[in-house]
Order: sequence, then C-alpha cells, then structure tokens
Amino acid sequence: MKVGFIGLGQMGHGMASNLLQAGHDVTVYNRSPGKDDDLVARGAHKAASIAEVCSGDAVMTMLAEDKAAEHVALGAGGIVANLAKSAIHISSSTISVALSERLTAAHAKAGQRFVSAPVFGRPDAAAAGKLFVAAAGAEAALQDCAPLLEAIGQRTIVLSSTPSAANLVKLSGNFLIASVIESLGEAMALVGKGGIDLHAYVDLLTSTLFPAPIYKTYGGLIAAGKFEPAGFAAPLGQKDIRLTLAAAENLNVAMPVASLLRDRFLTLMANGGETLDWSAIGRLAAKDSGQ
Amino acid sequence: MKVGFIGLGQMGHGMASNLLQAGHDVTVYNRSPGKDDDLVARGAHKAASIAEVCSGDAVMTMLAEDKAAEHVALGAGGIVANLAKSAIHISSSTISVALSERLTAAHAKAGQRFVSAPVFGRPDAAAAGKLFVAAAGAEAALQDCAPLLEAIGQRTIVLSSTPSAANLVKLSGNFLIASVIESLGEAMALVGKGGIDLHAYVDLLTSTLFPAPIYKTYGGLIAAGKFEPAGFAAPLGQKDIRLTLAAAENLNVAMPVASLLRDRFLTLMANGGETLDWSAIGRLAAKDSGQ
Amino acid sequence: MKVGFIGLGQMGHGMASNLLQAGHDVTVYNRSPGKDDDLVARGAHKAASIAEVCSGDAVMTMLAEDKAAEHVALGAGGIVANLAKSAIHISSSTISVALSERLTAAHAKAGQRFVSAPVFGRPDAAAAGKLFVAAAGAEAALQDCAPLLEAIGQRTIVLSSTPSAANLVKLSGNFLIASVIESLGEAMALVGKGGIDLHAYVDLLTSTLFPAPIYKTYGGLIAAGKFEPAGFAAPLGQKDIRLTLAAAENLNVAMPVASLLRDRFLTLMANGGETLDWSAIGRLAAKDSGQ
Amino acid sequence: MKVGFIGLGQMGHGMASNLLQAGHDVTVYNRSPGKDDDLVARGAHKAASIAEVCSGDAVMTMLAEDKAAEHVALGAGGIVANLAKSAIHISSSTISVALSERLTAAHAKAGQRFVSAPVFGRPDAAAAGKLFVAAAGAEAALQDCAPLLEAIGQRTIVLSSTPSAANLVKLSGNFLIASVIESLGEAMALVGKGGIDLHAYVDLLTSTLFPAPIYKTYGGLIAAGKFEPAGFAAPLGQKDIRLTLAAAENLNVAMPVASLLRDRFLTLMANGGETLDWSAIGRLAAKDSGQ
Repeated sequence: MKVGFIGLGQMGHGMASNLLQAGHDVTVYNRSPGKDDDLVARGAHKAASIAEVCSGDAVMTMLAEDKAAEHVALGAGGIVANLAKSAIHISSSTISVALSERLTAAHAKAGQRFVSAPVFGRPDAAAAGKLFVAAAGAEAALQDCAPLLEAIGQRTIVLSSTPSAANLVKLSGNFLIASVIESLGEAMALVGKGGIDLHAYVDLLTSTLFPAPIYKTYGGLIAAGKFEPAGFAAPLGQKDIRLTLAAAENLNVAMPVASLLRDRFLTLMANGGETLDWSAIGRLAAKDSGQ
Repeated sequence: MKVGFIGLGQMGHGMASNLLQAGHDVTVYNRSPGKDDDLVARGAHKAASIAEVCSGDAVMTMLAEDKAAEHVALGAGGIVANLAKSAIHISSSTISVALSERLTAAHAKAGQRFVSAPVFGRPDAAAAGKLFVAAAGAEAALQDCAPLLEAIGQRTIVLSSTPSAANLVKLSGNFLIASVIESLGEAMALVGKGGIDLHAYVDLLTSTLFPAPIYKTYGGLIAAGKFEPAGFAAPLGQKDIRLTLAAAENLNVAMPVASLLRDRFLTLMANGGETLDWSAIGRLAAKDSGQ
Repeated sequence: MKVGFIGLGQMGHGMASNLLQAGHDVTVYNRSPGKDDDLVARGAHKAASIAEVCSGDAVMTMLAEDKAAEHVALGAGGIVANLAKSAIHISSSTISVALSERLTAAHAKAGQRFVSAPVFGRPDAAAAGKLFVAAAGAEAALQDCAPLLEAIGQRTIVLSSTPSAANLVKLSGNFLIASVIESLGEAMALVGKGGIDLHAYVDLLTSTLFPAPIYKTYGGLIAAGKFEPAGFAAPLGQKDIRLTLAAAENLNVAMPVASLLRDRFLTLMANGGETLDWSAIGRLAAKDSGQ
Repeated sequence: MKVGFIGLGQMGHGMASNLLQAGHDVTVYNRSPGKDDDLVARGAHKAASIAEVCSGDAVMTMLAEDKAAEHVALGAGGIVANLAKSAIHISSSTISVALSERLTAAHAKAGQRFVSAPVFGRPDAAAAGKLFVAAAGAEAALQDCAPLLEAIGQRTIVLSSTPSAANLVKLSGNFLIASVIESLGEAMALVGKGGIDLHAYVDLLTSTLFPAPIYKTYGGLIAAGKFEPAGFAAPLGQKDIRLTLAAAENLNVAMPVASLLRDRFLTLMANGGETLDWSAIGRLAAKDSGQ
C-alpha cells in the first residue's frame, strides 16, 4: 500500500522500517531532521510537508502526546485538511480518549476514515516488528489497513468498532504497568527493610509467581535504584496516569490505585524526577521508610 | 529421611504424597480423620498424637493460620515438647513474622532446629511436586532438610539464615497477588464501563504485557464475576494482608496499596464476602462505578 | 462608588443588595430575567448588556464556574472589551487558579485592574453582609475597592498581591470542608455500626472538640441521611476538588485526602448523586460497611 | 463518696484534684512516687497498694494505654481481685474497645460494676474540672457515680448502656482530630507552595470556616513547624489510630482516611518522629512536595 508515516521517534522509526521491509510504498515525515536518512536510503520517500505525507491510501502517526497529535491532525495544513476522501488515518500514539473521539468526528466530517491502533511493546519490539497492536475502528477500515498493522506487529487484536476504545485499553495497560511498579516498590521496601537481598527477591518472584518481563525489568531497576537513563521518562508515565484518570472521570469510575499513582508522580516531580525513568516512583515507599 | 507431616489439607496432602514418592519414611498426622487413607495405603505410618509424628529427624507442618500453628508447635503436648534434640521443624505454613520469630526462639531453647519454608503454588502444583520453596534458616539445617524440600518443589530458593525472613517474603508475595487483583479490578471497571468486552481484554493483556498465570486466572474470574467456589477464600486473603501490614508496622514501612487492600477486604466482608474467592475484591471498583 | 454587578444567584443577590444598602451606585446584570426586580425597586440600575454594566469604576462578578466566568470576562463583548482603563474587575467567583491568572494578564494588557475576592459564607451570610472576603491584588486596587468589599462582608483578609492566591485559598477552604465531611462520614460509619445514636454523637462532638458550624451542619445532614434539597450541589463540590487537584498538580503537591475525595465524588456520581448535597459523600463509608 | 484514683499523670492529677475539691473522700495511688504530695497535703489518703486504693465505693483509673490498664485491672492483686462487690470501676483511660469489653465481663463475673468514662480535653481542662465526660454503662451505675463525673467535668454525656461504646466514641474523636491535622497539612502544603503566608492562612481559617480551638492549635503548630516539646506524643496518636482501625476491623468498616493516617504515622516513625507531637504528621505533605 501507499502509506505515509509521521513521527520517527524511537518507536516510530522501527514501525516505519517494518512497513518498508514488508514491501509497502512508504513516505516519511518528521519535524526533526536526520531521523529518516536510513529509511530513505532503503527506498522511503521523503515528504517536505504534511500534505505530501498524506498523498497515499493511508497515513500512520506515532507521536508523543495529545498536543503534537492534535496539531498534526487538526491544525492548519494538517492531516484532516490534506488526506483524500476514504483514505485512512491510523493513529498509534498514546493519546487521550477525548482526542481520539475528536479525531474520529473530524475525519468522518471530512469523508475520511480513522483507525486507532496503539501498540504494546518497547523500542526493540518495534524494531523487530513484534509489537502487539490494539486496533479499533470500522470493520472495513480495519480490513483495509490490516496489511499495515501486520507489518508492524506480531498480532493485531481488534477491540471495538469505536476507535477511542483502543485508546482506553492502551491507557489502562500503562496504568497496570505503573501499578506493578508501585506494588513492587512497596513489597521491596518491606522485604528490603527486613534484610532480604533485593536482587534475590526479584529473582524469586520472576521465577515463580510473576514470570513476566515487566516484573523482571522493573523489579531489577528498583532493586538497583538505577533510573537513568530513562527508558520511559517519568513525565510520560505521569501523563498516561493523567489521561487514565481523565477517561475514568468521564465514565464516573473511581480508581484508587490510579489516584495513588498520581500522587506518587507528583512527589517524584517535586523531588527532581523530571529526567528519571518512570519506575523511580517504585523507590518512594523505601524512601518514606527511611531506607 | 524419617519425617513427620502435620496438616493434610489441599496443599499438605500433595506435599506429603511427594515426600512418600521420593522414598522418605513418612508419618502423617491430621486432626480431621480420613485425610490420610490413601497415603497410609501407599506406605505412610499413621500417628495417633503429635508426640508420635515427632519421632523422626524432622517434622513438617502445613497449617492454615497462626492460631493452629501456634497450638500445634507451642501448645501442651506439641512439637517443641516432643521433638528430639537437633531434629528439625520445617514450617511451610503462611504464618506471621512474629510467630516465626517465637518458634525460632522456642526451638532454639529446646535444643531443636527450626527452618521456615513457605511455598508458592496452588494445590495442583503441590500434588505435582512443582512448588517453589522459599527457605530460610541456619545453613546446616537447610542442608540437612534439603532432600525433603527437593521432594516437594521444583526449586528451593534460600533467602536468609533468619527463618522469619522467608515468612516475610511469602506474605509479600501474597500482597503482590492481591495488588494485581485490585489493579485488574480497577482497569476492568474502566474498560468495561467504556464498552470493551472483558474476556477479550484479559486475552489481550495476557498475550502481551502480562503473560503470567496469575493475570489469566484472576482476570478470568473478575471478567466472569464468578467467585464461588473459592480457590483461596477471602478471609484467608484478608488474613495475609493483615499479617503483611503487621510486619510492615513493626518495620515502620508505609504500604498504601496494602492499606487499600485492607479496606477492600473489609468492604467485601461487610457485604457477604465470607465464602467468596479473595479475587472478589476485584469486583468492588466496578460496583462502585454503578456496574 | 459606581459599581456594576454580574451574577444574581443565591450568593450574588445578597451581595448586590448590600452594595446598594451601603449607598453605592449599583448597576445589575443577569442572564436570567426577574432576579433583579427587587434590587431595581430599591434603586439599582438595570443593564441590558455587559457593556452597560461595565460603565462604572468597578464591576463585581459572582458566577458559578470557570466556563461562565471566562465567557463573561474574556468573550466577545465581555468585561475586558468594555471596562474603562484603570477600572477594576472584582471577581468573587470560585474559579480555577489558572483562569484567575489568565484574567490578571488580560486585564493588565487592557490597562485595567483585577482583584480576586472570593468569599466564605453561605447565602444567609451573603444576605446579611456577613461574608468573609479573601482578597488579593495590587495594593492600590485593593484600597480603591475596599468600600465595596466592606459592604458585602464582616471582614476583609488581604492575602497577597497576586490575585490568584485568593483563589487558591478559597479552593483549599472548600477542600477542608469536604475533608471534614469525609472524616465525619467515616467516624459515623464506625460509631453507627457500633450502636451509637448518630444525633447524640454529633451533639457530643459539637459540644466538645468541634464547636464549629460546619461540624454541626454536615454532621446533622449525615446523621439524618438527608441530602435533598442540596444546599451546595455535589457537582459543584466535585468541581472544587477538581480545581484544587489541578492547582496542586501545577505546584507538584500530592494531596492524598483530596484524591480520596475525588474518588468519593466519582462513586457518588455513578450512583445517582447529581442532585444531592455534596455532603452525601459522607454516607459512602456507611454504605460500604453494609449500613 | 469514698473513691480511689489510679494514674496521676498530667490528666489524672487534675481529675483527682477536682474530686478532692468537690468534697469526696479520695485515696490516691501511683506507681511513680512524688506525684501525690500536693494531693495528700490537701487531704487525700495515700494508698500503698491497689488493694488499698480499692477499698471505697468506686475506683477511677486514668492510664496511658491498654497494657497498663490491663495490668492494673486484671493482673494479680489488681482491681478485679480487690474491689468490693457492687463497687464501681470507672475507667477514663483511652483504651481499646476489646479491652473495655473484657473489663466489663471480668467485673460482672466478680459481682462488681464497670463504667467507661473517657474524657475530652487537655491537661488544663482537667485541672479546671472542665472536661467533657463521655460515659457508658448500666443506668444505675451511671447514677451512682454521677457525683464523681460531675466533679471532673463540665458536662457528662451518656452514650450507651454498653461501656465499650464510650471507648469507641473516644477513639473516633481522636481519629477526627488526626484527620484535621492531615487535611490542614495538605492544605498548607498547597497554599504554602503557592506563596501564601501560613500564619495568615491559619488566622483566616479560624476566623471564618473553622472557629474551633483544634484548628487554631494544630494549624499554628504546623505553620511554625514546631513539634517539640510534644503536647501529645506521636506514638500515642499512632496508638489511637491503631485502636480505631482495630475497632473498625471488628465491625467491618473501611475507613480510608484512618488508613492514610496509619501510613503517615509509620512514615513519621521511620524518620525520627518518636519524640515529636503527633501533629508532626501535618508536615509530611509539605515535605513530599519538596518544601
């Protein structure tokens, strides 16, 4: 397919690379220069404007936050203004449910189609085409862009015909990861103060009850107390909890663990956490206990 | 080895069976009659008293709570009163850190040895000899009882020379499971109210971020809203959170998620939760949200 | 002074009436008709537009929320567009810190002055001119409008030269009241389940530890379980907690009781609380406990 | 009446003094010597044993905690062993609901009567006979000891015929005070970081919404950050929250603010809070926010 790609960050670069690898006709666009050199060398077209990157059957976006996604899609000279009728905007960014609803409406009004397809996985999975894709949108649109989603992930899970449902699920996933960090942090504050070696403890947990990479990764970081450089920066984690709580507020759902996470991120930010990995909230329980 | 076994419940029966299977000379004792028939048929000796079950090199206990463990070990005619000098009491029960410390002292005073060896795994793992054993105690004692621990588990992880350290770790593990139940409950209250099918959601989570049996088991129970019959009864889960908080209080460690879990269990108990599986606390967030 | 007044609700009507009573030259404006009849009968001028109500030395606003306040002040044909240079906008509405900062900037840019003067007290205190006025703004502006503030309140407390400081204090005050409701609700769930008569309990508290009208008022409402008609509607209380949390987020201050209140309001809203008094959150602890 | 008094601490001394002042025939007993010199000089008898202090119509106890109260009442040579049949034990100590129930049963079994009469007020109110007395017990017993209660307080509030009800109410009162400290702490962390002067803030609050001595006292301490010497030591406050939560657990009542207070006290204790006033928990929100 002829597809555009906007947002060549750590995640987006790998995704665009796999679209290319799968034989699609890929045009790339990024605000910061130099991110697309290797892709262009491998045959990608380079767009000078959003209009240019929107000239195909679909355009895929992978941006860091609502503000960027809103600007690129809804701003003057943005995607809605440029995409052909019936063409598809596939949004893989972790954005708010509210913005996803606005994008759905704006594209519908413009005679275009909108698919929300946030992904689960870290940069290495993006590079390897091993992401999990949580997709939602009209059935026909999902079918039409299936080859693209297959190129970037190891599995596509269709969640709903309402695009924003996929954003809600993506946010809930990040909430669940953050809640693992918090509860690991509390458990490790407890056993650490009780004299247990933290690395042995993480080894025990991940060999037994919790054989999941998330427990290994974050348990290891908390045990080592090593939160720099950030794999996923604390302000981004804080943003995802904020968006989770905003979605929950609209649905009148009280989420006390999410409220606690919100408070933990505020405390982290008030104490120099801007540049740390988000798992640094997992040290706060130990800090409170005088360790 | 010549070993006694006290406590032939769902877990203990499987453990005693594997001791027998591994060729040990096993004597069994249980308050309720009939639980040992098949073990006796396979060669186990039947003890009529605690004195009798304590006549070997070691005695292993697997009891439901502090009160039973205290009575059996420290009561008149109990283990401390009957075990030979240098023989080992291996306690696999999930008991409080404080009781573990009292048992350590009482056995030391009597010239006996005490090893704490709580296990991770459910009844099927106990039956299959596939438990994970978290052991703590004096090095020589651990070496002497290693063949017994190997018989009941797939792996023994040695945590400390202080027996109660193993109890602290065991409690922290149950706290972590309960915190998964709570956070899954909140996430599912959110996406469920957002219109997502809960079974598909659990499938997505366990295929991607959380490929751990605990997420599958408890996610499935919460999605189905099916908490009877109880695999692990709510009052037992509540007890483990109580013991976790008691240990944390002694160490001056604040654990806000554990405090939340405490409150959830109280609400569950106030609303007819006595006979439900402990994962029923995972329904409370949805209930609060009007679902 | 020649002063305009916008927002003749329960609170605003009493405030405008006291301005008139004190001999000021008052012009009134309200979207809904009929609210100003008695004031006009007593000598107030009736404005047909915001432009007209802004023709004096000062204009005072008392509106229900950010949206209304923003529209009236910053919208086309609003206060900023109409007020004379050097004239003063006195905002007594409970609005966000962020909006207060925007108003400060907009008025400064237009050569006008802005004073934030939220009030403490209920409609009866407004009618009696017995409000407490928490004022913030440039010293000269505060001096110039002192006669107006004295007319509406029994005391003016000057907090800061930054107008938004007064809004922060007002929000914090409503947070404190809500936290009294919550803690009273928990205490009454406890003693009520313990068999104590709730009215006697409130009588004891307010005769001894807590001789403050707030404890009497809200304790009585919770004891009676009577939340209709609403004196201060739950959605307004929820809004104030939302604004408190928003201000706290900007300052990186974690407020766990405020987070709990947020969750309580969500649960109330999910269970039919739209039309209840905000003190209905004080029933939730009892409800959770099966009462 | 002929009455004994045990526990001449800061509170008890004032209470015994007022019994004497009212013309009662008072015998005093205290573990530490020297506390009764002035009382004896004014006509009190000095008892050398608990047996001796129990020789009258009633004995009143004012002790610091469960352990002391249990020892004095139920220990060998204690009150139950020495009090005459039909004589009354009036317990004014802040003890657990569970111990109050045990005392009720033990005295009933011994043919004695038990009245629970915890008091509200600080040492100066005790010295002035201005305490508020929350009394519970059998009606006849309450009538018989009314002259004693009238001597120590400005008002006796009868709560229930079940003695432990008074202890539940007393604990709930201390919970309410602690919750005021916490919420003031959060509000002051917020406005303090927003640049407001904290003493002016407390002045505003106590002049308007919260004209109660508790807000003035604790607001002032938090504003000054001055927690030594302790008026009421943090470990005693922590104990009262512990007893509140224990009573709530028995009644299946979830109290999230009490859980938060529990966590705050643990954090305080982990960071050198042993000797501070309990209002030091009101500094933790500011500390978390980097102030």
